[in-house]
Amino acid sequence: MERMHLRRLEGYIPGAQPGETAIKLNTNENPFPPSPTVMAALAEITARALQRYPDPLSRRFREAAAQLHGVTPNQIIATNGGDELLRLALTTFVDPGRPIGIITPSYGVYSVLAEIHQAGLSAVPLTEGWAISDATAERWNADGAQLALLTNPHAPSGALFSLSAIKQLASSFRGVLLIDEAYIDFVDPSLQQDTIALTIEHPNVLLLRTLSKGYALAGLRLAYGIGSTGLIAPMVEKTKDSYNVDAIAQHLGVAALLDRSYASVSWEHVRQERGRVRHDLGLLGFDVIESQTNFLLASLPAQSRWPNGASLLNELQARNIYVRWFNEDRLTRKLRISIGTQQENDLLLAALRDACSP
Amino acid sequence: MERMHLRRLEGYIPGAQPGETAIKLNTNENPFPPSPTVMAALAEITARALQRYPDPLSRRFREAAAQLHGVTPNQIIATNGGDELLRLALTTFVDPGRPIGIITPSYGVYSVLAEIHQAGLSAVPLTEGWAISDATAERWNADGAQLALLTNPHAPSGALFSLSAIKQLASSFRGVLLIDEAYIDFVDPSLQQDTIALTIEHPNVLLLRTLSKGYALAGLRLAYGIGSTGLIAPMVEKTKDSYNVDAIAQHLGVAALLDRSYASVSWEHVRQERGRVRHDLGLLGFDVIESQTNFLLASLPAQSRWPNGASLLNELQARNIYVRWFNEDRLTRKLRISIGTQQENDLLLAALRDACSP
Repeated sequence: MERMHLRRLEGYIPGAQPGETAIKLNTNENPFPPSPTVMAALAEITARALQRYPDPLSRRFREAAAQLHGVTPNQIIATNGGDELLRLALTTFVDPGRPIGIITPSYGVYSVLAEIHQAGLSAVPLTEGWAISDATAERWNADGAQLALLTNPHAPSGALFSLSAIKQLASSFRGVLLIDEAYIDFVDPSLQQDTIALTIEHPNVLLLRTLSKGYALAGLRLAYGIGSTGLIAPMVEKTKDSYNVDAIAQHLGVAALLDRSYASVSWEHVRQERGRVRHDLGLLGFDVIESQTNFLLASLPAQSRWPNGASLLNELQARNIYVRWFNEDRLTRKLRISIGTQQENDLLLAALRDACSP
Repeated sequence: MERMHLRRLEGYIPGAQPGETAIKLNTNENPFPPSPTVMAALAEITARALQRYPDPLSRRFREAAAQLHGVTPNQIIATNGGDELLRLALTTFVDPGRPIGIITPSYGVYSVLAEIHQAGLSAVPLTEGWAISDATAERWNADGAQLALLTNPHAPSGALFSLSAIKQLASSFRGVLLIDEAYIDFVDPSLQQDTIALTIEHPNVLLLRTLSKGYALAGLRLAYGIGSTGLIAPMVEKTKDSYNVDAIAQHLGVAALLDRSYASVSWEHVRQERGRVRHDLGLLGFDVIESQTNFLLASLPAQSRWPNGASLLNELQARNIYVRWFNEDRLTRKLRISIGTQQENDLLLAALRDACSP
């Protein structure tokens, strides 16, 4: 009974959710649990809080996020995970028939959302060195894109686009530029870019932040957008579901942002481990792009016995280690490997050493 | 920056969320808290469950719901509250430009969703006696509706449409008939209709059930749809957000359904209290429709001093009692009053007695 254009659509397939004993390095979760403060906030949830509808405007959470970033609460929207903000951006800013701008490769959800919405794609490949091509904004404009989705730091490469490249895009692109900063907490502090200032200078820039990765709350579904009130107000007041964020997520989200210093310890761990894992993968012959995220994109050794990433992925899976492979242009001979705990990373490296030995 | 058609749209305004001291009879929450089993399930939530992505398919919850209703899990979709299922039905089954069928009056969200989706409305008024007009399906068909949204028991009247009327609609209407059963738990058991069987006989019938009201979990955001696999599969596999229901809601939802007998005590309370409150409102001169829900739709006494429902609503609000008024055809001289605890209902009745006395 579904609409004609949906019949041929293949939905997005999330990474596998194996059992608790697996070494799970496939969906970029934080290797460490959320802050004890968050768990204490969970223990504070009353029966009354569940009985009553939550605040439809997520006011306390938006105030906490606004305070953290030095903006006002009406520059913030709280969403049921980052996926909701992505979808809302299409619903709010894109007329069906008009394409959305993306770069390739990109997070697979972007093209699925475009198909559902009957928006096409204006897809501009990254350069060989995983940088944004010069003519990207011009191409999006020429194709009539009203919205562009850009992951920065980028997935699945892990590369960080420079602030000047982003500013250039924001100035040249005539639509809404949504910068999906799912991985921003893992960027080296010395490289951290003030993208909040971008939303002030460029009223067409919408930032996506999530608590799934940096704050280890993937199970809770909580993300938020930061942007000019011209972008935020129509989503908060018109297009989002009335009670889009539940009472527990609102309460725990405040606790998580207030205890940012706890989460930041995990960010530093990830930075150190990704350097070590990258180095050790290099010793095994993998070519690994420098990453500012909590994952690495590793190319199979040039002379290896694996015809593609999927065959190595299957070998690892037989050892109960889960990583991610994408059957896409530029990615078929690569694996995306999340940074885990030191022990998980050691087990991965040991398995690869084993698999690589003659 | 929003799309042209959204500029003139007025978003849905949920009922007020006053502070804890208010007598809150405005958004049809359950007067009693959720089951202790649900609170025990909440205490079981581990840091690990929050750290990891939830099951994108909500399998355990769908199995529990399937078992409760005697269907298979692939006839169930779990959603982030009923609002998500309503939205997904438009996304999945309605081409922009085609109207959705509704009856009037209806839940205000329906027309807002239609506007966002650029679907028109094929609106057929209920009869004077709050029944479905004979030619409703024919009118929806003639207007080209691919989806119709019907609340049963009906809101805001509280009336229950007969199973034969629903069957007639399902047989005659050529699109998807979504029956929003948000209030079904409060129907007198002697009148309970086997709408599950409808979904077997009519592959175009999609039922919406929510845990917000019957199970006192409005704060959690959890609902589900029941229908043929032809309706459920495209929403589960294609159009819903990847991780639409969080880990806590999935876990607590199972506990709630398993402890249905606890919730059913509140349903019986509501049935008794709505009879008493209706009777007492009648003594004060209000004309109140018989209700099979957890609210009453009360018409102002014919000779009362209030020009419309809003003025009485404001008087009640001054006494910290919140009810709901709709500035809509047939509803301007009525108030919708949720059934509360016995004490809350007594306070409401006392306030009305006071307001009605000369």
